[in-house]
Formats: sequence, C-alpha cells, structure tokens
Amino acid sequence: MIYDIIEKVYKLEKQGKRIIKLNVGEPDWLAEPSVIDAATQALRAGKARYSSAAGEQELREAIAKYHSCEAKNVVITPGCKFGIYALLALSLKPGDNAVAFAPYWTAYNLMCKQLGCQLKRVNLDLQKNFAPDFDALEAAIDSRTRVVIMNSPNNPTSKAWSEADEKRVIDFCREKGVLVLADDAYRDLCFTPRGDRPLGEGVVIATTFSKAFGMTGWRVGSMLAGEETIKKIVAFNQMTVTNVPVFLQIGALKALEMKAEIEAKARALSKKRAGIAARILRGKLAYAEPDAGFYVFPELPAGIKGDGVAFANALVDEAGIAIVPGAAFGDYSRFFRLSLAGDDASLESALRKIVELAERAERAH
Amino acid sequence: MIYDIIEKVYKLEKQGKRIIKLNVGEPDWLAEPSVIDAATQALRAGKARYSSAAGEQELREAIAKYHSCEAKNVVITPGCKFGIYALLALSLKPGDNAVAFAPYWTAYNLMCKQLGCQLKRVNLDLQKNFAPDFDALEAAIDSRTRVVIMNSPNNPTSKAWSEADEKRVIDFCREKGVLVLADDAYRDLCFTPRGDRPLGEGVVIATTFSKAFGMTGWRVGSMLAGEETIKKIVAFNQMTVTNVPVFLQIGALKALEMKAEIEAKARALSKKRAGIAARILRGKLAYAEPDAGFYVFPELPAGIKGDGVAFANALVDEAGIAIVPGAAFGDYSRFFRLSLAGDDASLESALRKIVELAERAERAH
Repeated sequence: MIYDIIEKVYKLEKQGKRIIKLNVGEPDWLAEPSVIDAATQALRAGKARYSSAAGEQELREAIAKYHSCEAKNVVITPGCKFGIYALLALSLKPGDNAVAFAPYWTAYNLMCKQLGCQLKRVNLDLQKNFAPDFDALEAAIDSRTRVVIMNSPNNPTSKAWSEADEKRVIDFCREKGVLVLADDAYRDLCFTPRGDRPLGEGVVIATTFSKAFGMTGWRVGSMLAGEETIKKIVAFNQMTVTNVPVFLQIGALKALEMKAEIEAKARALSKKRAGIAARILRGKLAYAEPDAGFYVFPELPAGIKGDGVAFANALVDEAGIAIVPGAAFGDYSRFFRLSLAGDDASLESALRKIVELAERAERAH
Repeated sequence: MIYDIIEKVYKLEKQGKRIIKLNVGEPDWLAEPSVIDAATQALRAGKARYSSAAGEQELREAIAKYHSCEAKNVVITPGCKFGIYALLALSLKPGDNAVAFAPYWTAYNLMCKQLGCQLKRVNLDLQKNFAPDFDALEAAIDSRTRVVIMNSPNNPTSKAWSEADEKRVIDFCREKGVLVLADDAYRDLCFTPRGDRPLGEGVVIATTFSKAFGMTGWRVGSMLAGEETIKKIVAFNQMTVTNVPVFLQIGALKALEMKAEIEAKARALSKKRAGIAARILRGKLAYAEPDAGFYVFPELPAGIKGDGVAFANALVDEAGIAIVPGAAFGDYSRFFRLSLAGDDASLESALRKIVELAERAERAH
C-alpha cells in the first residue's frame, strides 16, 4: 500500500504533475558536500571492485565505537532494510513468527509474508501515547516466536519510548529467549538526544545512513549483533548483494566523522517542523506529539466516513498532496502518516490543506 | 568455499601480503572515465534519493532495446546476483527444486539451500567439452522443478554452447512448463560476438554491468522477464533493497551508450589472455578452450593425489597465487578455476608457476 502510492507518485511526476510528497519516509536534506567528495574521489581512485561482504573494516570499526562493541559485531548492508530482511530470513523458518509493536513499518510484514511466516501484532493506542503494552506482548509471544521487533522512535508515530520501557522490553524478551531487533533508524533524530544504543546480549541493532545523514538513495546501513549472527548475515550478503559499493562506504565513513554536527542540524530541523505541525494540527486532528524524526500519525476525525485510503486518494487528487494511509502500518485504517518535509511555507500550506480537507469531509457526513 | 578464499585473501592483503588474485570473478579493468563522470555528476546534482524499485525508466528502456522487449520487461537490481536470488525466492517454495548444469556458479547452490530447496545438478564432462546433456536434463527435471538455470557462456568453464544447443534447452523446458533462467553475465564477452539474447516466452534473462563493463563494485544488474514476473521482482526489491542508487544507474546508462566500444575492448583483451593461457597450459593441463570471458577450468593431472582444495592451499602458501578449487562449482573436486587477469607478464608468470607446481606435485606422487 505504502509502495503503491510511492510508485504512483513517481508516475504522476514523470507526467509533469507537481506532487507535495508527504508520503515518502525520507528527509529532504542530502549528504554533506564533503561526504559526496569522499565518495567520488574513492570512485575515481578505483575503489569500485568486489570487496568484503562484511563491509569495509574502517567503517565497521567506526560504527562499532558508537555502540560499545567491536568491528566483528558490525556488518554493512545496502540499507538497514536489507539487513533486517537478512536477519529475518536467517532467523525464521516457515511456521515461525516474529512479533512487532504496531503501528509498524510496512516492510516488516511484507518480509515475514515473503518468508512464509506470520508477523504478530501488539497493537498500541494513541490514547496511551503508543507506549508498550506488556500484557499484550506476553500474550503475543509463543513457542514459535523468534524475533520481537522494537522500533523506538517509531515509524509512523515518531514516539520514542522511555529508556526504562525499552529496557523492560529487552529484559522481558531475553528472559523468554527471544531475540530483540532494535530498529534504530530514527534514534539519532531524537529531539532529546539519546546517543547510540550499546550492543547488548540478545539484541540486534539496525542502523542506517538514510535518515539523519540524508543519504537515503545511497543504500548504506548496518546491523550490529553477536559475532555468530554477523557471520551469518555476511554470508547472506555474499550470496545476494556481494557488498555495498566500497566508494559509497568511504562516503559513509566521512559522514560518520561529521556525525555530531550532521545529527545536530538534522535534529534541529526536524524539531522545528514538528513545531510547525503542532501549531497547525493541534486541536484539529488527534495525534501523538513526536519525540523524534519527521513523521506524525494523526487519526481521522470520527465524523469522516471513509478510511485513510479514501482520504489519501482524495488528498492526492484534490490537492496534489501524497500521504500514506494508516492501514499500511497495521490495524490503523482510520489513521494516516505525514512525513514533514519541505520549506516552512510549503509545509504549512500542505498541513493547512490537509486539515481543511479533513474538516470539510467531516462536515459532509 | 569460493567465498572463504575471497575473505582469506582480503585478510592476507590487509596484512601487507601481495597475492596474485586469479580467484576473483572480476575483470581487472574499471568503468570508463565518462561513466564515472556521469555517476558523480548525478550524485552532485542530488540524484541520491529513494526512487522506483523497478529502476530508472531510461535505463530500463535502454536495456530493453538490446533484448527486443520493453521497459516493463526490465527491472534493475543490485547486481544480477540479487536478481537471480529474487527470482529463485519468488519461484521456489520449500520442497521445490531448481536444476543447473554443472560445473556451475557457487551462488546458485547457496541460494537454493537458503531457500530450503534443492539444486539438482546436470553434470557435464570436460571430455565432451561441457556440452549440454539432454538425457541427464530430462532425468533431473521432476514435478517439483520450477527453474532450469542455463549459464552459457559458463562460469567456471567459459564454454559457450552452440546457439542450437541453447535453443534446444529452452524449447525442452518450455515443453515441460519449466522456466529457464538464462544467466547471461558473460554473454557480451563471447570471443565471437553473439549480441544480446532476445527475451522469449518462458525465459528470464539476467544481465550485469559487472563483467564487460568493468563495474563489479557498482552493483548494477538487471533481470528481463514477462511483465508479471518483473512486477514480483520489483516488489521484492522494494521490500529488501528499495532501489539501486539512482546516480549509479545514471552511470550505467552512460556505459550502455558506449556498449559496442566497451565490449569490443573487453572482448579483445579477454581473447588475448585466453591465448596466453593456451600457450602455457595446453599440453600441460587438461582444460576446455574458452569461448568467452576470463576463466579457464583445468583438471589436475591424474598423478596428483590431493584435490583442488589442497592444490589451492599449496598455491597460495608457496606462490602467493589465489585460485578457486573446483568443488566450489559442484562435483569437480579435481578441477580448479583460474581467472585470467593482470598484465601479460604477471599473468604468464603466474600461469607458469601453476603448471610448475602441478608438475612438481605429480612427480612427488
């Protein structure tokens, strides 16, 4: 569903239509010039051959430092999406299941389906600020559960759980002997900085250069885990994608040297936009105030008859604004995800149009 | 096994050891400067965002033209290895099988294993010049066979079947209702040029920018198939790697504009090296003369007691030359693969050392 809209928007744009894309899970900033320089110099220098499926040693070391582990605990993947797919493919046999807190990132569910497995949902409530529900977690885990996916800060809600809640989830799963996959794609965009997650036992961490670093289209991410798990993902890389282009990894290494600076800039911008959204949406649409990143996940007003899909279609047709219906994130058909991108004026105007359309739809019923 | 050696060599090199790498399935030329320019300009211009999981339309169109099909029949993947993995993952359910003519590229077998499926082998003989064996093919195909993999020219033998034999394989499989995956990674390096394979019913074609174009480390390849199959691979891309970096696709498009020129150069160089190999190996080691690409696949002399693994280890330890033992390619433990790379003098010297070591080992038994 999320991907149908993405591909539809690419097509509309090819036809020359101007679409305000609040649907794409992508920041609107790009890699720093010095990062681009590092990559292009490496390409010109011939760093464009097959290389280690584990990733470049220097990059692995640099990433490891931020997570209190060693290079052998890190593997570079073409985006952390691929790393997550590899982990699930290696962890789940047909009939096994994974558990994810919902609303969740669409891809988890698609991956599990492809692997012939079930993704069990622990549905969280807007009314409870999408905090973890431990009773529901306990009920969801069974003897065939291999992985619990924790995505805090979350896509699509941008809620970050308290560190105590995160710890409780990890401890709970460790006790049950179930691996926790911490998808930390948005962690470096916490409005109140948290630093990177230290690698702990029973936890696999997914990180990416896509979001804070603005390098979505480079396809560079990493997975952090125990050495044996890393070896398996390296073998999976070797069998499928071989390696992430070395010259791109050299760019990523440069980005990491500027980590503090890049993240501060990205965080400030994200926070500002969350403020713009709050000013326009608060009191008009029910949603949880974001703690990080660039999404908000409002609920449609009760008076609106249609669901998020109908609303998304109306919005793209009538206002040229693309959003993602909530059903893409689990049992949230009355919600929709907005990605806060663009200059202040465009973003404000798009948000106002969304509120206007929602209010008009509500009045019509 | 092939990958153990690759990772071992990377480690030895990191330790400062000089290894002559006749093990890597990689040409020693790189992308043309204008290809690199196109990619770096695109990166600087911001062509580094998420994009269509199908690949850039212009590149799909350009590739389609060479195969007498349409853009909708083409999907861009991070190397054709990934495309092949996607096709197998989408085609095979646990318990299904694929059939490959052996010796074959290691990755096919690893992929099938990962997918919980069997790769059935149709073993071909050096004595018959590795020509297809139709009786063995008929015997191998059963009711659970979903794909037959045809790799002509072949890795590791570099033998190209006659066009009549290729057609017979395709016709035979079409009759049986089994898909043919034509892995054409080396087709544009045929010493007697064949042109690209037209897309036909019941055939999926894998192509790559890695070999003739010298772009191994860029990870750009493509799959050509019927529209429905392409849609499935696009969805698989979206769920795993998202898309191949757009700026790299723009580089690949530039490479395609220079296709005739680049291929002619690569072909001439490959042919020259096959000549060097013939001069040194002929009469010393039994092997099939290559028709394409840059591999030869000699058999160990009968007098040598150890297998290809022992020979490969001795060679890297005693002479700093890396090769791949034949067992990596199926039931060919008495064979080994050489990748003919490097300047004429180094290549000659490496080949002479290999012959010398083989002769010495034979005398010792």
